[in-house]
Amino acid sequence: MTDTIISSATREVVIGFNRPFVIIGERINPTGRKILAAEMAAGDFSRVEADALAQVAAGAHMLDVNAGIPLADEPAILAKAIQLVQSITDVPLSIDSSIVEALAAGLAVYKGKALVNSVTGEEERLEIVLPLVKKYGAAVIAISNDETGISEDPNVRFEVAKKIVHRAMDYGIPASDVIVDPLVMPIGAINKAGVQVMQLVRRLRDELKVNTSCGASNVSFGLPARDGINSAFLTMAIAAGMTSAITNPLHGDIVRACMGADVMMGNDPDCARWIRKFRDVPAAPAPGAAPGDSPRGRREGGHRRRPS
Amino acid sequence: MTDTIISSATREVVIGFNRPFVIIGERINPTGRKILAAEMAAGDFSRVEADALAQVAAGAHMLDVNAGIPLADEPAILAKAIQLVQSITDVPLSIDSSIVEALAAGLAVYKGKALVNSVTGEEERLEIVLPLVKKYGAAVIAISNDETGISEDPNVRFEVAKKIVHRAMDYGIPASDVIVDPLVMPIGAINKAGVQVMQLVRRLRDELKVNTSCGASNVSFGLPARDGINSAFLTMAIAAGMTSAITNPLHGDIVRACMGADVMMGNDPDCARWIRKFRDVPAAPAPGAAPGDSPRGRREGGHRRRPS
Repeated sequence: MTDTIISSATREVVIGFNRPFVIIGERINPTGRKILAAEMAAGDFSRVEADALAQVAAGAHMLDVNAGIPLADEPAILAKAIQLVQSITDVPLSIDSSIVEALAAGLAVYKGKALVNSVTGEEERLEIVLPLVKKYGAAVIAISNDETGISEDPNVRFEVAKKIVHRAMDYGIPASDVIVDPLVMPIGAINKAGVQVMQLVRRLRDELKVNTSCGASNVSFGLPARDGINSAFLTMAIAAGMTSAITNPLHGDIVRACMGADVMMGNDPDCARWIRKFRDVPAAPAPGAAPGDSPRGRREGGHRRRPS
Repeated sequence: MTDTIISSATREVVIGFNRPFVIIGERINPTGRKILAAEMAAGDFSRVEADALAQVAAGAHMLDVNAGIPLADEPAILAKAIQLVQSITDVPLSIDSSIVEALAAGLAVYKGKALVNSVTGEEERLEIVLPLVKKYGAAVIAISNDETGISEDPNVRFEVAKKIVHRAMDYGIPASDVIVDPLVMPIGAINKAGVQVMQLVRRLRDELKVNTSCGASNVSFGLPARDGINSAFLTMAIAAGMTSAITNPLHGDIVRACMGADVMMGNDPDCARWIRKFRDVPAAPAPGAAPGDSPRGRREGGHRRRPS
C-alpha cells in the first residue's frame, strides 16, 4: 500500500494501490497546439481556462499544466497559467516543464502540494530537480531514462527508476512521493511495448512499491483510432497496477475505460462511481436489434445459475 | 501453447495462446428475445439469417447458435438453424444447448468440427455430453460448476475445470479440445468478481494450459452502460490470458476493445488487423478542441525521446 497525496489549497487527491485510478488531464499544453501557444505567449489564457474547466467537468482528477513555447518566457507563463487554473478549479496540478527555472517559478506560486513533472535518471537533472521537490515538499514524476536514453530493455528501465527513488530518498523525499513513469513506447513501432510496460508496472508496484504514471497517448502514436488503443492500454495498465496517467479526459472513451477498469479491479465499491456517472446514459440498442427485442444477453443454460 | 481448432466445411478458426482473441457472436439466441423465439418456433429463420450476416460483418470469428424455446422442438429447430447459418456463412459455429438431444441433432447436421456449448462438471452431464463430443470429434466448452452449483471460491472452480479436462481425456478428447469457461459473476453483486476471474484465467492458462471462454455480458448484469463494463472486462481478461468469449460483436466498442487488447498483447503483428479495420475511421476531434488545433498529445519533454 503506497499512497501519494497531491493537493490544492482545498482538495486532496490520493494516488494509490487499490484506489480509483487518477486521471491527470493533458490538454493544457501548447506543444503541437499553435493557437494555444500563440495565445499563451501573448498573455491570453482564455483557452487555458476553458481547457481546465472542460477537463475537470469530463472527469479529470488532476490537471497537467505545461507552458513550453519556444522563445517565450516559460517560467513566467507557467506561473501565470498555474495561478489562473488554481483560481478557477480546486483540482491539484502537475507542474510540467523540462526547464528547471519554470518548475521553480510554478512551485513558487502553487498553493498546496504539487506534482512536479518531471525528473529523469540523468545525474544533472537529479541534482537540480530533487532539491527543488524537497524544498517545496512536492511529489515528483520519475521518468525511467538516463544519460544513455530510453532503454528498450524493461529491466534497465526498472533499474533507472530504482536509482531515482533511492536518490530522492537521499534528498529526504519519501518513496511514496515519487511516481514512476515506466515510459510507454509506440506499439506501432515496438510490437512488445504493451507487454513490456505491463511487466514493468507490475515490478514497480510489487518490488519497488511505488505509484506509477505515464503519458498514455504515446502508445498509439501513428495508428488510426488512437482512442481505442489508448483505452485498451489504460485498461491493461490498470490491471497491471498502474495508478495514474496523463491523458485526455475529453475523450469519453478514455474516462469510461479507466472507470470500467476501476470497477473490474474492485476499486469502485458497489460500482457507486460508475452508476453515478452513467445511470442516465440510455442503453444503446444493438444495431440490428428489432424493436421489442428484450435486452441482449447470453442465455444462462439450465445448469447455470442466473444472476439475480 | 495450446491451440483449439474449430472449423466449418471450408474455414478454420484457431483459438490459442498468443493468437488474436476469438469473438463468438452471441446474438442467435431466442432467450429474452420474444420475437425471435416466436419466429424460430414458427419456422421463420429470417432474423437468424440477418443476425448471422450482421455479426460476421461486424467482426465475429465464430457464431453461437442457440434454439432454447420453451415447449418447442428444440433439437429440430437447432438443427435447422445450424444448417441455415452454415449455408450463408463460413464461420465455424458453437452449438449451444442445455438439452443433450439438441446438441446431438446439431452435431449430426454440422459440417466441420463444431464447438459444443457446453458440459458442466456434473457427473450426469459429463457422462452424456462427453461421449457425444468424442463421437463427432468436436471441441467443448467446460463450465466450471458442478452439482454443488457455482462456487464463489475460484480455487474450487479451478478444481472443477481440472476434473472436466481430465474426464474428457478419459473419453479420448484431448485437453486442447476443452475450452474452460471460468464463469463470470456479476460485478455489481460481487465486488471481487473481476479480480477473481482474472486470477482464475491466469491459472487455467499457466497450470491447466487450456483455452478459455465465457459469456462476457454476465459481468455487467444490472449496471448502466454495460458495454463499457464489458469492454473493460474483456480487455483485462485478454491481458490475463483469456482466448475467446461469447459476446456481442454488433457493439462496436466490444470489437474495438478486443482488437485493441490484441494489439497491446503483441498478438497483432505490425498492428495490421487494427490498421485494416480502422484506417478509414476519421479521428474524432476532442470536444472543445478548437479548429486548427493540432492533434493532441502530451509533450515529450526535452529529455524524452520522441517517437519518430
